[in-house]
Amino acid sequence: MNNFTYHNPVKIVFGKNTIAKIKDLIPANNKVLITYGGGSIKKNGVYDQVMKALSGYNVLEFGGIEANPDFNTLIKAVDLCKKEKVDFLLSVGGGSVLDGTKFIAAAVNYNGDPWEILTQKKSGKITKALPIGCVLTLAATGSEMNGFAVISRRETGEKLSFGSPLLFPQFSILDPQTTVSLSSHQTANGIVDAFIHVMEQYLTYDVNTPLQDRQSEAILKTLIETAPIVMNNPDDLDARANIMWCATQALNGLIACGVVQDWSTHMIGHELTAAYGLDHARSLAIVFPAIIENQKSRKFNKFIQYGKRTWHVIPADENNENDLNKAFDKVFNKTIDFFHSLGVKTKLSDSDLIPEKWAVNPEQTFEIIADRISKRGLKLGEHKNIGYDEIKEILNKCWK
Amino acid sequence: MNNFTYHNPVKIVFGKNTIAKIKDLIPANNKVLITYGGGSIKKNGVYDQVMKALSGYNVLEFGGIEANPDFNTLIKAVDLCKKEKVDFLLSVGGGSVLDGTKFIAAAVNYNGDPWEILTQKKSGKITKALPIGCVLTLAATGSEMNGFAVISRRETGEKLSFGSPLLFPQFSILDPQTTVSLSSHQTANGIVDAFIHVMEQYLTYDVNTPLQDRQSEAILKTLIETAPIVMNNPDDLDARANIMWCATQALNGLIACGVVQDWSTHMIGHELTAAYGLDHARSLAIVFPAIIENQKSRKFNKFIQYGKRTWHVIPADENNENDLNKAFDKVFNKTIDFFHSLGVKTKLSDSDLIPEKWAVNPEQTFEIIADRISKRGLKLGEHKNIGYDEIKEILNKCWK
Repeated sequence: MNNFTYHNPVKIVFGKNTIAKIKDLIPANNKVLITYGGGSIKKNGVYDQVMKALSGYNVLEFGGIEANPDFNTLIKAVDLCKKEKVDFLLSVGGGSVLDGTKFIAAAVNYNGDPWEILTQKKSGKITKALPIGCVLTLAATGSEMNGFAVISRRETGEKLSFGSPLLFPQFSILDPQTTVSLSSHQTANGIVDAFIHVMEQYLTYDVNTPLQDRQSEAILKTLIETAPIVMNNPDDLDARANIMWCATQALNGLIACGVVQDWSTHMIGHELTAAYGLDHARSLAIVFPAIIENQKSRKFNKFIQYGKRTWHVIPADENNENDLNKAFDKVFNKTIDFFHSLGVKTKLSDSDLIPEKWAVNPEQTFEIIADRISKRGLKLGEHKNIGYDEIKEILNKCWK
Repeated sequence: MNNFTYHNPVKIVFGKNTIAKIKDLIPANNKVLITYGGGSIKKNGVYDQVMKALSGYNVLEFGGIEANPDFNTLIKAVDLCKKEKVDFLLSVGGGSVLDGTKFIAAAVNYNGDPWEILTQKKSGKITKALPIGCVLTLAATGSEMNGFAVISRRETGEKLSFGSPLLFPQFSILDPQTTVSLSSHQTANGIVDAFIHVMEQYLTYDVNTPLQDRQSEAILKTLIETAPIVMNNPDDLDARANIMWCATQALNGLIACGVVQDWSTHMIGHELTAAYGLDHARSLAIVFPAIIENQKSRKFNKFIQYGKRTWHVIPADENNENDLNKAFDKVFNKTIDFFHSLGVKTKLSDSDLIPEKWAVNPEQTFEIIADRISKRGLKLGEHKNIGYDEIKEILNKCWK
């Protein structure tokens, strides 16, 4: 096991009808800015519950934070916070709203151009941030129990991440009832996002971390088992609760303790989203299989372990090399089938989300992306072996 | 899943050679009281590492905190803290030292007789406590990542627990090297303690918590797999690290999220320890099997699940009632064999730790214990069905 530090002070309040507890969690007399997205919270009753819980507080609102929250949108909220001297930010929505809110919290107190927080890796210089609370309405990103955020800038086609211990939400309210009104498209995206988060912390090489491996497999197995229940019966509150807790556990730092990580699926996926507006989760479902194929020899052993323990399609004592190679393909296909069962495509060329212009010359696009990533000077993968050439190979595999 | 709140702000610093980080974790100029036990830390180099890391601080010492820390010992430390105006308590040792340190931290600021904190369940009235740090030297109790403590009072034969969110250690340093010098007796005790902690949060009835179940099974399986490695090769640092992380994860609140718990093994075990000085873990290894036999019908389904997933001695699709009954016995025996493989006895009458006086009239002793527990007015077990009569039955099963 590698040395590690784990510290996660987020208070999780989980369960039905817990939104009313906001009033015990935000200091009295605070001026609160509620942040939200496209307004679905006004249709599904969440907004009303929040406003009722905040009765007595001085409350302002900032709506319209989009999926893959945009720098220019968020700067407007930063200006509002400064002007109104907001004390507390309450994010009501999914991971995009919360990530955007984290950026607002950091940018309000940042001296200089706030975009530097993302481009110049000055997140370590965040010395002060507004306190954040969260009412989560979508199980997916895990942002509700970590200090990370991903922000996009459409004018430059960039999508970048940052983090700070000062950006942990003080509390996150996770009421699975808020997720019942999600579309099957959104529900599927959340499941894929959580699944890939686990994979990026698990599917590397072994440094003798049997507990962490099993904690990862626990999330994978529960997602695989619960996904069809919730897709077939979106009103199943128990299933919604289980998916919600899986998504939180997938990215709160626990399964990352002492292990080797590989975030290359996210790094390449972010570029597809930034350039072409592909949903975050859908980019992951396309990039992940391509990386598995490209990095097969390096990820072989852990992939076989994943197959044995999660899909049970390989006998636990199987050791024959030929049979293991066949088993690899079987587990690969099981994984692809799982994404397809959620209505999520795994090839760019199949995706109905791909704009017309992609079809013209995908290779050219891939060169631009490979160039952009490799110019950041970091090779991807747990062995730091994925550079310009490998990224192009991976993107070609993503295509078809 | 039941509603729950989860909040655990302990910073874990895990790994080899991490004791030196103390200096980044305790505020400069603090007057620090180091608390420890029988002095093994002065033989295995831990004391020297701690003192080196604390160079520059004003440091006091309080040694001699015994296993099952005693009220009268701890009160002396409380007096010292008041007299010397100590700012910070640094526990260097195992769970007993840390539990004792938590009591000191609470009692220093408690108005009234500090024993009330335990007897009158006034722990909710703990409004202030000294900050605590921990250098852990024994993987067992999980106290390093929770706000609970168990304190004994030998003069009255009592052993009681309390807790407060103010008693979370600010940090816990977990260097597996500190556990290498433990005796096999102590190592075995730690493994049993962690194993039973998981069981008390897992082996109840199902409220649809598939992720938490698997997180519990992850710890059980890792303990079962790693125990023989560490017992046969006490110097195996990887195995020591894995046992250490299992013990922490077994009682940091995570696997308790949203599930039904049953702490009857601990409640009855504490009485055996309080009355007769039996090691904590050894009391658990005796009481737990007796409870399983006594509560067989109520715990049957979860016990079968534990057998299927942890011991793999039952086919996953086995449903035949007769076969499941046989399987129950098989899993029961596997569990007993596991304790025996660690050199831990599972019957009081077999135990070489039992004082002469027990053999004379065990039934009378059991009546005293059953009377003491039932007089507290709480029935034990997840169904609250374990009262005076059942406790006597369980204790008789404990005997032979």
